[in-house]
Amino acid sequence: MIMSGGVGSRFWPFSKEGKPKQFLDFFGTGRSLLQSTYDRFSKIVPPENIYIVTNDAYAEMTQQQLPELGKSQLLLEPLRRNTAPAIAFATYRIHAVDPDANIIVAPSDHLILREDLFSADMRNGLAFVEKNPVLLTLGIRPSRPETGYGYIQVEGDNGEGIEKVKAFTEKPDLELAKKFLESGEFMWNSGIFLWNVNTILNAFRSYLPDVVQKFDEGKEYFNTPREKQFVDETFPFCPNISIDYGILEKADNVYVNISDFGWSDLGTWGALHEISERDENNNANLNCKALFIESSDNVVAMSDDKLVVIQGLDDCIVAESDNVLLICKKNEEQRIKQFVTDVKFRFGDEYV
Amino acid sequence: MIMSGGVGSRFWPFSKEGKPKQFLDFFGTGRSLLQSTYDRFSKIVPPENIYIVTNDAYAEMTQQQLPELGKSQLLLEPLRRNTAPAIAFATYRIHAVDPDANIIVAPSDHLILREDLFSADMRNGLAFVEKNPVLLTLGIRPSRPETGYGYIQVEGDNGEGIEKVKAFTEKPDLELAKKFLESGEFMWNSGIFLWNVNTILNAFRSYLPDVVQKFDEGKEYFNTPREKQFVDETFPFCPNISIDYGILEKADNVYVNISDFGWSDLGTWGALHEISERDENNNANLNCKALFIESSDNVVAMSDDKLVVIQGLDDCIVAESDNVLLICKKNEEQRIKQFVTDVKFRFGDEYV
Repeated sequence: MIMSGGVGSRFWPFSKEGKPKQFLDFFGTGRSLLQSTYDRFSKIVPPENIYIVTNDAYAEMTQQQLPELGKSQLLLEPLRRNTAPAIAFATYRIHAVDPDANIIVAPSDHLILREDLFSADMRNGLAFVEKNPVLLTLGIRPSRPETGYGYIQVEGDNGEGIEKVKAFTEKPDLELAKKFLESGEFMWNSGIFLWNVNTILNAFRSYLPDVVQKFDEGKEYFNTPREKQFVDETFPFCPNISIDYGILEKADNVYVNISDFGWSDLGTWGALHEISERDENNNANLNCKALFIESSDNVVAMSDDKLVVIQGLDDCIVAESDNVLLICKKNEEQRIKQFVTDVKFRFGDEYV
Repeated sequence: MIMSGGVGSRFWPFSKEGKPKQFLDFFGTGRSLLQSTYDRFSKIVPPENIYIVTNDAYAEMTQQQLPELGKSQLLLEPLRRNTAPAIAFATYRIHAVDPDANIIVAPSDHLILREDLFSADMRNGLAFVEKNPVLLTLGIRPSRPETGYGYIQVEGDNGEGIEKVKAFTEKPDLELAKKFLESGEFMWNSGIFLWNVNTILNAFRSYLPDVVQKFDEGKEYFNTPREKQFVDETFPFCPNISIDYGILEKADNVYVNISDFGWSDLGTWGALHEISERDENNNANLNCKALFIESSDNVVAMSDDKLVVIQGLDDCIVAESDNVLLICKKNEEQRIKQFVTDVKFRFGDEYV
């Protein structure tokens, strides 16, 4: 179950509502983040068992990028309602296809560097959730006091590399993040989850009954021609709530597989800058041609047919897509969403 | 005689060799600088008497921008040889058409704000050079101690607003420019000249005999079908020399018409910034949509379908054309030519 409905506004204008982050080839590899995610999972599970959950608006783009995908593998939300309703929708479909299925839930827009370790963790996790009625998260052993991620605190080692979760935390400030790192008890929450279809359905019934109540009413429609209409009618009544907040932070059967496969959620320009190749002055250039002169610590994201010449610029984001160019201090990137709102208000939808 | 062969590399990448400054609509008026220059002169002289001197490479672009221009009005240099040879070429043609012609020589890429004053000066000047065998320059009364222009020193008032020239000066440093401004004796050299065809031919014979010697050998070819071949064969042997250095600084019959019609040579980003509309933080945006946040003293030149969002940037040039984006400190603009050379060397001709 690949979650592919995000709008990626943090990387505006490199990503836009019309073409969000997961559909972009961030690193000039020739494959978008979604395609890379699909490629990764198609080596772990039968490709026909891969479901892409996305928004109606991205149906065509998804089919263009993944022409091998069967129509029934594309689960389309009529509107955005955060991860809990999206996962509920896909869970009901998968249950209708296979009432004993073990499920991996994964974001479509993350970077994973060591696929061999990732695959081993996935296979290990699938075996674990098949035998145990638990909600298994993937926790990344932190390498730096990152303030941009949520953390998962673990209780103690159970001998299998899979530990019981003590608590989920919000993004910490730097001081707290340093303490998390020192303690060894805190893992980055990767947003990758594994569970058996019945385990997650039970959790929904316990913690988000209002989400599943509606789906239960029409559960005979899933995996039939009437599914789409039913979902379209049901989705607007679902609450806007994340799976983390709605279930994982509340359930008592949550475990974490501690992983170390070179992961980034590519959630911020700063994170992107960190993991990109950089020149001797710490300038990262994603995939265009660039000449940096007396410039340092910049990150540049332009289409690959562009040449950029930058002189006397430090600590900036330079990002472009089609009709929009953004130049912005890297440490002000949390304001980009506000810029997008301002642009929409002043200049209209065509730029966002 | 509109001089339109320049490559405009100072405004790279907004202007490029393939589309230099004079062919660009700098201010979003709907007409390029060349078109505006043509429009201006077509109200002063019969349009069929306007000649455009440009490079072979720009023949098509010139005809596209000025479809009303007869083919014979386009004088094509086979290669670049500065202003003296270009003016000699056009002078021989004009002499063949009308051996008594009075000529205005004008750059194609300057800005003139007050057309009424400009037209009056042109008509006044044409009448003056018809009666007097002099080389008349247009001097602009300076409004600031500009270091980017050459200056013309005048001897004294002759009562007609036209004075005898004492000396030409190179671009001064700021201290000297301030003294020029205080003295009242120094005018900006606009590069606009008026003279009778015989006066300039005599000056060529006196001061640049090697330029005209070749043209004299084939003077019967001008304004005939054999002209183009003759010029193509002759031009490579002309020295690379400007009319200012080759004739005006040496001749003793040079006068200046002191003018005040709101002029800029648009020769630098700084000059462009000065004369453009600016927001309350001194940001100039030539013709695209722009949102400036915590930014000041920038100049932005992008195509008009673009939106630019700039945060935390000061004193910069942001210029783009097709496949190239330049971000550069405004006070380093004299290095742009070097950037162009570097880009050509490292990435090839397609970007310059």
